[in-house]
Amino acid sequence: MPIEIVAVSARDRSRDRGIDLSRFDWVDDTAGLASRDDVDVVVELIGGSDGPALTLARNTLAAGKAFVTANKAMIAHHGLELARQAEDKSVALKYEAAVAGGIPVIKGLREGAAANEIGQVYGILNGTCNYILTTMEERGSDFADVLAEAQALGYAEADPSFDIDGVDAAHKLAILSSLAFGTRLDFDGIAVSGIRHVIAADIAEAQALGFRIRLIGLAESDAGGLFQRVHPCLVPTSHPLAHVAGSLNAVVAEGNFVGRLFFQGRGAGDGPTASAVVADLIDIARGEYGPAFAMPVDALAEPPVASSAVRRGRAYLRFTVVDKPGVLAEIAAAMRDSGVSIESLIQRGTAPDGSAIIAIVTHAGPERAVTDALERLRGSASLTGEPMLMHILDL
Amino acid sequence: MPIEIVAVSARDRSRDRGIDLSRFDWVDDTAGLASRDDVDVVVELIGGSDGPALTLARNTLAAGKAFVTANKAMIAHHGLELARQAEDKSVALKYEAAVAGGIPVIKGLREGAAANEIGQVYGILNGTCNYILTTMEERGSDFADVLAEAQALGYAEADPSFDIDGVDAAHKLAILSSLAFGTRLDFDGIAVSGIRHVIAADIAEAQALGFRIRLIGLAESDAGGLFQRVHPCLVPTSHPLAHVAGSLNAVVAEGNFVGRLFFQGRGAGDGPTASAVVADLIDIARGEYGPAFAMPVDALAEPPVASSAVRRGRAYLRFTVVDKPGVLAEIAAAMRDSGVSIESLIQRGTAPDGSAIIAIVTHAGPERAVTDALERLRGSASLTGEPMLMHILDL
Repeated sequence: MPIEIVAVSARDRSRDRGIDLSRFDWVDDTAGLASRDDVDVVVELIGGSDGPALTLARNTLAAGKAFVTANKAMIAHHGLELARQAEDKSVALKYEAAVAGGIPVIKGLREGAAANEIGQVYGILNGTCNYILTTMEERGSDFADVLAEAQALGYAEADPSFDIDGVDAAHKLAILSSLAFGTRLDFDGIAVSGIRHVIAADIAEAQALGFRIRLIGLAESDAGGLFQRVHPCLVPTSHPLAHVAGSLNAVVAEGNFVGRLFFQGRGAGDGPTASAVVADLIDIARGEYGPAFAMPVDALAEPPVASSAVRRGRAYLRFTVVDKPGVLAEIAAAMRDSGVSIESLIQRGTAPDGSAIIAIVTHAGPERAVTDALERLRGSASLTGEPMLMHILDL
Repeated sequence: MPIEIVAVSARDRSRDRGIDLSRFDWVDDTAGLASRDDVDVVVELIGGSDGPALTLARNTLAAGKAFVTANKAMIAHHGLELARQAEDKSVALKYEAAVAGGIPVIKGLREGAAANEIGQVYGILNGTCNYILTTMEERGSDFADVLAEAQALGYAEADPSFDIDGVDAAHKLAILSSLAFGTRLDFDGIAVSGIRHVIAADIAEAQALGFRIRLIGLAESDAGGLFQRVHPCLVPTSHPLAHVAGSLNAVVAEGNFVGRLFFQGRGAGDGPTASAVVADLIDIARGEYGPAFAMPVDALAEPPVASSAVRRGRAYLRFTVVDKPGVLAEIAAAMRDSGVSIESLIQRGTAPDGSAIIAIVTHAGPERAVTDALERLRGSASLTGEPMLMHILDL
């Protein structure tokens, strides 16, 4: 079936997009695309979880037309409603470009790994954060400097919060975990923290201990429920995610038959987005449509949010402290009293304000014990700033 | 559509396979599976390009039933004939497990990257070779020792030639390039060499120069035709293929829109093979079938084999030489007289027989010049063994 563009709509008709759009019908009322008789599929690249994108999606599916989108926020928040509309009308709802840009990871999980029970799905889902972290790594720079430079170069938004605070990665993680585990999308169940508080010393100490720092979105499903977290993590250099540099994205799925599947590629930009959108269009032209997620909406499971209180693992803790006798003893005592066992500790270097820096990697143990230890230290006059806690990716 | 196993056939009924097959009909005459009325799909895991596997494939497709196989040799040699049979009967011919085991790379190229023009497709396609090379790398061992150990452990066949001489990788490469470029399978057009002649010193010198040695299958399509080569290569440590260790497989596709796509996972074993076979079965159950390759057989292009005489690149050359004055001058003169420019040269270490070892990396230039230089040195009394030539992967 040939694919033909019949109409185009955008906010600003006069903007120079580097291509000639005059061959196509220009539509001012975007929502009206959905009701045209000559349209079979609407492609939405507006963005935003609500507003005109959502109106267009609802109208398109209600009119019994297929809908292709790159809108991770909308799918994360309204994916089930839209998938149900698509099911009711037996049309396709496709969103390959919404997660990890050009990497065919939606297809890879939904079809390629379909025979497997997935234990974990996780990865580097935000190119801006990965660019900032790997640039800090290369240059020994601090977060604020690299962010300012990335903003000046247009790699980061003027309001970078969606990226650097982990919200964008969480949108993508919600989608991946629904696909991997056959569960209902649960964006609100994701524990999210970003990379704002990572300092140059964290990266240096992590490296000295055999790790690199990456913002990791991780979802895990077991008898205890569905666990989803976006968090800066220490990734051992032996793990493939440690070698994902710059603005690349990467996704790992651990399947019971296939083992570890690793996908890497460009997560954003016009070329990768177009590649994924057109792959969706080709699938639609080939007559391929099925449930938007792993199975029909009513068949998706709704597991409880797994309690992080029972999670175990190694952790990295970094304290900026007053440089005076007794501080190390105070921290060590808090660890001991909470039952946290220390695997390695580095004290060297100083923070920008002249504080001493203590970096600790714990042995595997309850995450709860580590947060307890931090609780014990809260308000201590020895600390010159908030301690930094990062988990270690031991997969 | 539910998937149900109705009959099983194998050479040896009594072999313990660790699962109870008594629930299923046992069929002694394998080829007879194709004519059963209660069979919609036949899955073939016999192996071998001809013989019973091919008979079964032909009979199954002739009977208008779908065929799923993990048989890379058969697809590489008879894929077009079988694809045409499948087209004639409008049934599916699927072979995800034939290339890179559990990695959904057939689907990734055929569907995920469908919007792109692919410039190159290449990767690590044989787990046995990668296991041997990375074990040599870790331990500083020689090829023969690691091979013997791999054979003792069952990681390599008693007759390892198919793997270590690159034939298995070439089967897979033929399939990948047909998918990536929309060309007819051309196994015979692949220049193949294996890893038998890689010595410990090659790996050490490559590492000293910033490379790792991997057996790379590479296909490239341009105006000059289709170039396909399986060859041990020096891979810069900055390239993701340099980090693929042990028996893993990995495939890279360079697309004009998506950029570099990188897939990694387990390339062999019962779990990964089952994962890929069942993914094919699920696709068939979902009613998904299309041309077995990128497009119908008659639409596949038949480009000429690109001449390697016009290729350019950097190369690694290793000589084992008599340890006496003048040898280096003789080699340097041969390089000069053939117009080969030297980027780096290491002379240190000795081969097992006491010869001196000279390792050279050339600047980018015509591959032809390098083979010319080797031609000039043929028969020289200074050389104690065949020189080793490996290309450098500069992608």
